[in-house]
Amino acid sequence: MHRTKVKVVEEALDANNTIATANRADFDRAGVRVVNFMSAPGAGKTSLLERVIADLDGVRAGVLEGDVQGSMDADRLAHLHVPVTQLNTDSGFGGECHLDANMVRSALPALPLAEIDLLVIENVGNLVCPAEFRVGEDARVMVCSVTEGEDKPLKYPLMFRTCELVLINKIDLLPHLDFDLDKLLYNLDAVHPDVERMLVSARTGEGIEAWRDWLAHVAAPEGVHA
Amino acid sequence: MHRTKVKVVEEALDANNTIATANRADFDRAGVRVVNFMSAPGAGKTSLLERVIADLDGVRAGVLEGDVQGSMDADRLAHLHVPVTQLNTDSGFGGECHLDANMVRSALPALPLAEIDLLVIENVGNLVCPAEFRVGEDARVMVCSVTEGEDKPLKYPLMFRTCELVLINKIDLLPHLDFDLDKLLYNLDAVHPDVERMLVSARTGEGIEAWRDWLAHVAAPEGVHA
Repeated sequence: MHRTKVKVVEEALDANNTIATANRADFDRAGVRVVNFMSAPGAGKTSLLERVIADLDGVRAGVLEGDVQGSMDADRLAHLHVPVTQLNTDSGFGGECHLDANMVRSALPALPLAEIDLLVIENVGNLVCPAEFRVGEDARVMVCSVTEGEDKPLKYPLMFRTCELVLINKIDLLPHLDFDLDKLLYNLDAVHPDVERMLVSARTGEGIEAWRDWLAHVAAPEGVHA
Repeated sequence: MHRTKVKVVEEALDANNTIATANRADFDRAGVRVVNFMSAPGAGKTSLLERVIADLDGVRAGVLEGDVQGSMDADRLAHLHVPVTQLNTDSGFGGECHLDANMVRSALPALPLAEIDLLVIENVGNLVCPAEFRVGEDARVMVCSVTEGEDKPLKYPLMFRTCELVLINKIDLLPHLDFDLDKLLYNLDAVHPDVERMLVSARTGEGIEAWRDWLAHVAAPEGVHA
């Protein structure tokens, strides 16, 4: 009996990755670079976007807001006059705890891709599942706030491991915390050695220039994150 | 044609609830009250347990630690000489983002139910999915830290709605935050009117007595949370 060995690429079997690849092709065709922006609830994603999104060295940015319910973050960004699209995940009982490629795909018709160079997708606040679902992004950024403790890289390793940039936020609070920054950085290097990291404070503006430059660079033609 | 109308209770069809009910029966048989303890990552669940778990007015407590990976929280509690059992959810790719009734059931043989009156199940740090899965608990407690912002009840309503007690933690940081406590309480009442809430600081010990009393009361024979 003749047998043909069929090589099946595991990734191709994964529906999410198939759709993520389709999203990515659509983004590429439109010339839009995409950042998947993730963190625990309340780490400061929206505040960090508010600081930079309207002033990215000529890069035209848009935001896709992923939330279980409501449009509070989209409302906060509205006054910045960048296009913001809201995506809610609460069609299920308690709502989905992450965005997946198909949810992002469902939002594509509502996104003004022809008018932007960069799309930041603000994911649902969660350190577990968002890391498991590619949505068609060029780069992943996560926010880790110093109020969350030094142990988070070890407890949520996949999230820290799959990011190109880690923003360590709320550093203005360091004098008021029992927090060992060196220990956090040590734990970070244990799960993702030498990943790019920035110390920032959305509240005081410290470190924000570097974050702005990084984000603008993603969308620049010569961007290293292409 | 004769037709019999069969009344099917929706809840009975749900495998998780079926197993949660079995867990509950086993806990009841052992005379153990169970608290499902939930929050976002880094809100302070373990610190709040460290403060009270070894000194509950004669109530013998045990802890079931749910984590994606590792045993850091269990290690932190080890010196308190209360029984701590570790349950990891990382059998999948990135790990499960919550405990469900079946995971808790799988831990039952490892739990010293005959030696305790109260079991605190520290859930995976996440404000979405843990709220969707009953595990056989008598009461649900969540921690919301003031560093997370005032909007969390509106963004994660199911979690706030299904709790018997909300611990508002890290109040020692209030002088250093742009945080409006009244606004948080207003949002809390919007999704769960009059839910019991306590202002606490695991760091300074403020409010900890009330939390200790509440927890001891759950396990007391005349407990209102029976």
